[in-house]
Amino acid sequence: MTKSSNAMWGGRFAAGPDAIMEAINASIDFDKRMARQDIEGSRAHAAMLAAQGIISDSDANAIREGLLTVLSEIEGGSFQYSKALEDIHMNVEARLKEIIGEPAGRLHTARSRNDQVATDFRLWVRDQCDAVDSALETLMQALLGQAEAGADWVMPGFTHLQTAQPVTWGHHMLAYVEMLNRDRSRFADARKRMNESPLGAAALAGTGFNIDRHMTAAELGFDRPTSNSLDSTADRDFALEFLSAASICAMHLSRFAEELVIWSSAQFRFVVMSDQWSTGSSIMPQKKNPDAAELIRAKIGRIFGANVALMTVMKGLPLTYSKDMQEDKEQVFDAADNLMLSLAAMTGMVETMMPQRDNLRGAAANGFSTATDLADWLVRELGMPFRDAHHVTGALVAMAESKGCDLPDLSLDEMKSVNEGITEGVFDVLTVEASVMSRQSYGGTSPIRVNEQIARWKEELK
Amino acid sequence: MTKSSNAMWGGRFAAGPDAIMEAINASIDFDKRMARQDIEGSRAHAAMLAAQGIISDSDANAIREGLLTVLSEIEGGSFQYSKALEDIHMNVEARLKEIIGEPAGRLHTARSRNDQVATDFRLWVRDQCDAVDSALETLMQALLGQAEAGADWVMPGFTHLQTAQPVTWGHHMLAYVEMLNRDRSRFADARKRMNESPLGAAALAGTGFNIDRHMTAAELGFDRPTSNSLDSTADRDFALEFLSAASICAMHLSRFAEELVIWSSAQFRFVVMSDQWSTGSSIMPQKKNPDAAELIRAKIGRIFGANVALMTVMKGLPLTYSKDMQEDKEQVFDAADNLMLSLAAMTGMVETMMPQRDNLRGAAANGFSTATDLADWLVRELGMPFRDAHHVTGALVAMAESKGCDLPDLSLDEMKSVNEGITEGVFDVLTVEASVMSRQSYGGTSPIRVNEQIARWKEELK
Amino acid sequence: MTKSSNAMWGGRFAAGPDAIMEAINASIDFDKRMARQDIEGSRAHAAMLAAQGIISDSDANAIREGLLTVLSEIEGGSFQYSKALEDIHMNVEARLKEIIGEPAGRLHTARSRNDQVATDFRLWVRDQCDAVDSALETLMQALLGQAEAGADWVMPGFTHLQTAQPVTWGHHMLAYVEMLNRDRSRFADARKRMNESPLGAAALAGTGFNIDRHMTAAELGFDRPTSNSLDSTADRDFALEFLSAASICAMHLSRFAEELVIWSSAQFRFVVMSDQWSTGSSIMPQKKNPDAAELIRAKIGRIFGANVALMTVMKGLPLTYSKDMQEDKEQVFDAADNLMLSLAAMTGMVETMMPQRDNLRGAAANGFSTATDLADWLVRELGMPFRDAHHVTGALVAMAESKGCDLPDLSLDEMKSVNEGITEGVFDVLTVEASVMSRQSYGGTSPIRVNEQIARWKEELK
Amino acid sequence: MTKSSNAMWGGRFAAGPDAIMEAINASIDFDKRMARQDIEGSRAHAAMLAAQGIISDSDANAIREGLLTVLSEIEGGSFQYSKALEDIHMNVEARLKEIIGEPAGRLHTARSRNDQVATDFRLWVRDQCDAVDSALETLMQALLGQAEAGADWVMPGFTHLQTAQPVTWGHHMLAYVEMLNRDRSRFADARKRMNESPLGAAALAGTGFNIDRHMTAAELGFDRPTSNSLDSTADRDFALEFLSAASICAMHLSRFAEELVIWSSAQFRFVVMSDQWSTGSSIMPQKKNPDAAELIRAKIGRIFGANVALMTVMKGLPLTYSKDMQEDKEQVFDAADNLMLSLAAMTGMVETMMPQRDNLRGAAANGFSTATDLADWLVRELGMPFRDAHHVTGALVAMAESKGCDLPDLSLDEMKSVNEGITEGVFDVLTVEASVMSRQSYGGTSPIRVNEQIARWKEELK
Repeated sequence: MTKSSNAMWGGRFAAGPDAIMEAINASIDFDKRMARQDIEGSRAHAAMLAAQGIISDSDANAIREGLLTVLSEIEGGSFQYSKALEDIHMNVEARLKEIIGEPAGRLHTARSRNDQVATDFRLWVRDQCDAVDSALETLMQALLGQAEAGADWVMPGFTHLQTAQPVTWGHHMLAYVEMLNRDRSRFADARKRMNESPLGAAALAGTGFNIDRHMTAAELGFDRPTSNSLDSTADRDFALEFLSAASICAMHLSRFAEELVIWSSAQFRFVVMSDQWSTGSSIMPQKKNPDAAELIRAKIGRIFGANVALMTVMKGLPLTYSKDMQEDKEQVFDAADNLMLSLAAMTGMVETMMPQRDNLRGAAANGFSTATDLADWLVRELGMPFRDAHHVTGALVAMAESKGCDLPDLSLDEMKSVNEGITEGVFDVLTVEASVMSRQSYGGTSPIRVNEQIARWKEELK
Repeated sequence: MTKSSNAMWGGRFAAGPDAIMEAINASIDFDKRMARQDIEGSRAHAAMLAAQGIISDSDANAIREGLLTVLSEIEGGSFQYSKALEDIHMNVEARLKEIIGEPAGRLHTARSRNDQVATDFRLWVRDQCDAVDSALETLMQALLGQAEAGADWVMPGFTHLQTAQPVTWGHHMLAYVEMLNRDRSRFADARKRMNESPLGAAALAGTGFNIDRHMTAAELGFDRPTSNSLDSTADRDFALEFLSAASICAMHLSRFAEELVIWSSAQFRFVVMSDQWSTGSSIMPQKKNPDAAELIRAKIGRIFGANVALMTVMKGLPLTYSKDMQEDKEQVFDAADNLMLSLAAMTGMVETMMPQRDNLRGAAANGFSTATDLADWLVRELGMPFRDAHHVTGALVAMAESKGCDLPDLSLDEMKSVNEGITEGVFDVLTVEASVMSRQSYGGTSPIRVNEQIARWKEELK
Repeated sequence: MTKSSNAMWGGRFAAGPDAIMEAINASIDFDKRMARQDIEGSRAHAAMLAAQGIISDSDANAIREGLLTVLSEIEGGSFQYSKALEDIHMNVEARLKEIIGEPAGRLHTARSRNDQVATDFRLWVRDQCDAVDSALETLMQALLGQAEAGADWVMPGFTHLQTAQPVTWGHHMLAYVEMLNRDRSRFADARKRMNESPLGAAALAGTGFNIDRHMTAAELGFDRPTSNSLDSTADRDFALEFLSAASICAMHLSRFAEELVIWSSAQFRFVVMSDQWSTGSSIMPQKKNPDAAELIRAKIGRIFGANVALMTVMKGLPLTYSKDMQEDKEQVFDAADNLMLSLAAMTGMVETMMPQRDNLRGAAANGFSTATDLADWLVRELGMPFRDAHHVTGALVAMAESKGCDLPDLSLDEMKSVNEGITEGVFDVLTVEASVMSRQSYGGTSPIRVNEQIARWKEELK
Repeated sequence: MTKSSNAMWGGRFAAGPDAIMEAINASIDFDKRMARQDIEGSRAHAAMLAAQGIISDSDANAIREGLLTVLSEIEGGSFQYSKALEDIHMNVEARLKEIIGEPAGRLHTARSRNDQVATDFRLWVRDQCDAVDSALETLMQALLGQAEAGADWVMPGFTHLQTAQPVTWGHHMLAYVEMLNRDRSRFADARKRMNESPLGAAALAGTGFNIDRHMTAAELGFDRPTSNSLDSTADRDFALEFLSAASICAMHLSRFAEELVIWSSAQFRFVVMSDQWSTGSSIMPQKKNPDAAELIRAKIGRIFGANVALMTVMKGLPLTYSKDMQEDKEQVFDAADNLMLSLAAMTGMVETMMPQRDNLRGAAANGFSTATDLADWLVRELGMPFRDAHHVTGALVAMAESKGCDLPDLSLDEMKSVNEGITEGVFDVLTVEASVMSRQSYGGTSPIRVNEQIARWKEELK
């Protein structure tokens, strides 16, 4: 982030004050990432100025064409950035002046760097919302693929990392589809809320020129212009909302990543990660370190750290623009990059990981995982109050444990010794397959329900 | 938060392990705040069980009536909480059993504490969204009152806490109305997203009982049941989203609070806070410490600290429920309480603060605050490119500064000495009143625009 | 934390402004925890005032005796706190006046609430440093007990949660002793740095009375008085340093807690937690949820959340005291309570957990965990460069893997087929016992080294 | 931070999995900053291996010379970094092999990347402690210069940003000297605690080679080797402690920066910032935006954000190394860079800022700022209890306020009308100069005390 600037003032206190001030003040090293947005905003502004008769059509045309030239230079890599010109806005305008001369000086009419940077940054963050949306959809599809392949595979459902009840692999995969879908809707809400154009708010008070803010808003794809110029230049809540949504999404990813790390251990062996997403050891070829999963698990730190950073920056700032707010961009850039990278890597892992069906089932069929099914059977078939059924089940599990067997291995007589009413039918509910099959309540783990959900998601995501 | 528990294990290591385990494990000290939600959820569940024929109507009626009795005991203050019963769910059920006997044991059929607590907590957070929405509206109306009273009062608009351009008091008040309105919409989005019923997800896998989750969802005001039982019991993103929205809202409040503190200083004297929201000094009667504003400014720490706390808790937790998640409630309770308290106190302050019109105008009319208006006049009337107009304006301001006067005090001849083309008309734009009047772009600070916005908000908020 | 205050203004906006102001402003609900410190500080102050001739000896005696009476009322539970008196300082002084009359009015000579609260709070935090120090020592001793019992037990050493090399149980336990010992030294440093007396800094500027700050400092166990009165009343870095040390300590605890959760899973079974520190399930008696470990894992959220909260509060506050700083205490109280609780619970768990020696060894002897030993043998005995030795080892592991056996199961001929120079001696390094025995570098996992470290720690901790 | 990597996978999902994995996994883009530390560590390791007879002297010499060549290539800018080689360790070793051939393969004997990176990173952080120490001293000297120039200048002392009592400029400057000195001692403590060598801990378990860890520790300037190899490779508390100290220091800077922003406002005009550390406006030449102060105020966000990020990363990681920990470096690099930059910029600002003596005094002599002096006089001269003296003072201030004058402007008769005992002597304490002169308690604001402290600091810092 600061490598270059640091190099620059490497001698630190040897560096003169000018160099230190430039290092702390100039933003061109990072805000050049908004070059395209800056140029789009300026082109829209110039067109509006001409339409309103504030500048001539020929000046507007020269500006708009010149800006396209600047953009091509930037995208082609030939643009020479100047630190003395501080930021992307001044760099672009200075180059425009070299290209088109005097009309360049008319571009900044009826606007200010304050509304310009607010516009650029909103456009950039809005683009990221779209990119994240697409990346989330791709990951959801990868999960859906895993869910479909193993819709009815039995695995242990955990609470406290202790085996609780059998569930299905497809159901577990779909749990993350649900979480990521809420993440998508959070980004969609954030995008909608931020999609108002601050352009024309000028320095802070609006302008006396007869501008048409609705026109620039429309050209830039905003739903409408913002309604208060002070608010427009002073707030960064849209960036904080993006960071909040990104943090929650990273939290979801960290949980799945933790599961993949645990599942990859020699003790679990629930999944085998593909070679692409692991690193090996030259002397322990069986070892596959789940590096990508670990790094994704860690990214919540970085992304939420950015959220903390910007929240702290904004705390207690009086209106309107303060230079503190220049710290907004690097945090958002870094968080967005790392979220996108995490989503891409997670997608790759999910697409290529190999669930170990036998290990999953074996783990599920351990530890009396169908005890709840037994209790439910007692309630349903014998009409016992649930709390009593729990008690009887406890006694039967204790009996099985003392005999070193599992519940289905008890004889009917042994069962009857605890409760007379138990019948042969009880054995129908004691296998893990029967257990998951039975849980057909809406949203339950039964393959029937899982396949319904898969069908729904395939419809939604196609 | 931990006062009572701390008192309990005061002797610390002298306390036996049982006392320490109870202190760290039991949640009744705080989750009793969800008593009403817990009872509502149980009543809905019982009605559904009967409707589906899983329990008898008479049992359901006994349960539902008994729960009302428990609720009245709790609300009446006569309920005896037991720490040995750990949490609110067990406390309520145990008391229900005392009241109605055997049928109480049937209530827990086809559910688990995992979906029960998820339901209770969603209901509680949903209620808070509604409470915050109402509190935000009240504060917006207070701000609107201030805006209307001083729609055209001139004050300095600041950037970098330096006077930049004159703006209107009404415009400044409306900036916060905009911010708070986005806060409202964030809470509304969060409420909508969380408004799905996890009840019936049972421990984690759903249930084999023929329950009707749509029925309980409807009775509890949820839009629909959740679609995946693992997700339903494992995620707390709804709480994190509430905390994120609360943090952003607290950030807005901290900025306004900072302004009030600065405005109350002897050097600014832009506002006089009412006695109610200040504390005095027995020996310095002129001193009014803006305590409420300072405390509101500080609350972002506490509220965002809660966000950090829960985000950290959730990081890397494998599915589904882990006991770590018990830490979710105190953070949300504390953040919600402090946000509500901040909103109430801010509302009181805004309603009673006294802006000092003369001081506001006096500060605005200092420091060449209409220099931009002069530059804009040069562009508009003389057709100069904006960058050139800036240059001329700079020369004129330098001249005024060297003469120790402000811009309107220069003579026309003096102006012409810098640029021949300047005419008498320029003086029309150099007063602060003319300046704010001129800024009629949409969202601008002109009283015309401000009054339009006030009218819009009065319509929206009525 | 805010339960009572919330209850108080329950009707929220129905509550009048006085109630809201009291709710946000009064601190007595939490700062009463500093009653003892407040009274100690006042007693020292009174003695000094008399010694310097500022008040009479008889007044000082009355004050000092009266304060003891107040303290006994508070500790006995008979003290009536008044919210109208706002804070602990005013509550104590008001009660003192009731008890001793007029001389009570002389106590506040040459001091202010600003230096008084700074003194009280430092004394409180200093006490916590001592309490944490003691709790850490107790936990270290529990770990030492585990280390000694299993100094030479072999278990897998993990990287990436993949088996890497065999290590010893004692070594693993001692790793946490090292971490906690650094935590202790952090608290010790913090204690030393904060141990300067702010008493006598008065409101902010010092006082014109001829006080002796060295005398009060000495009586209160401070090393010296602070050197700048503005700094003394304005800074809270000592509280932030305590929270930082607590957060790092909580981080260490969270890691061990995570290990205990994973080790308790059915897949690992490295430890069995005692019943005291687990919760069971009435129907799955084999299930022991490691609740205490999970809660400790979660506490880093709460403790670090407090750190974030106070850091955010202090950001950008101008000197000296601002009311924002009233938010310091609840965060520190809560973090200290939860750290102490975590340490106590962790101690209990460590003292009673049962490591499963066979499972530990079995897991270690899997997965070619002695491959590094083989590579080292090739370097040491055959003089191969390490990078080449790695290559040969890789080939041998691949051979073993293809045969479905482990390294010690290969024949010498098979080994020679990969590298001619290998001799019978290689088999001496391929068992897990030989592996751990060999690692005798300083700090290594060999039981010889582990026992030396145990001896050192027993010396240090006795 | 991620600009280059982002550029690399710009096409995002178009990028194949290899590119995404490389982007998330490779660390060479940032860990190349530890090149010098890496080479120092390797040189020490090679010397030790030879001294212990593990490699030959000629190999060791070739390695040590070759590493110097690599270092000169890196420092000269001619080194070609390879992303395929992942990190700085592999890049250096690969280049070494090109230069010296076969002996390069012997360097990695008896160590691992795990202890290597832990060593490199400690050395890097230790260097930063030294750099920060020096930067803090320089800033303290700049503050001392300001303190000396205005040791007896009177200015208002604030609480709640309300004028409370007169203090001296020198005293205010020294308050920050005290804070920064504690920051220095925090870094010194952190440096001392981290100054143990992890080199030789190898992968995690130590090594079977007969290495001498004390020798490498000594050569690298460490106080001793670490005592537990698991701890050595697994913990990053030293980095968190650095970040904690940096965050607290940044908090102090944010407070001073806030003061400078407020003091630079048109309403305060307590200081004029030099042109070097401000930015101007081309049309408002009187406007000096305190950009550097604002940016320093903001840096706490970024620095503490890094602390949050790493704390979150470390939460709940099982021992020993996990790939998550690769996220440690960028956070520390960025925080260190920004702290150093902030200290340098603050030093420049302090050295060149111009306090406005008349404005400072004028603000102090307003608002009955000597009311406390009057109350103290009543206690001291008339023997009134302090609480009574407060009451009398309040009456006199009210009288002055109603007459529109300040306290010294009341006549003796007017004073006597409130309290008969008041004598002419009272006027000696009512000027701001008398007020500050009187506060001679240790650490008080009196110029006598301030000059003593200046003398002490000049001695300490020379």
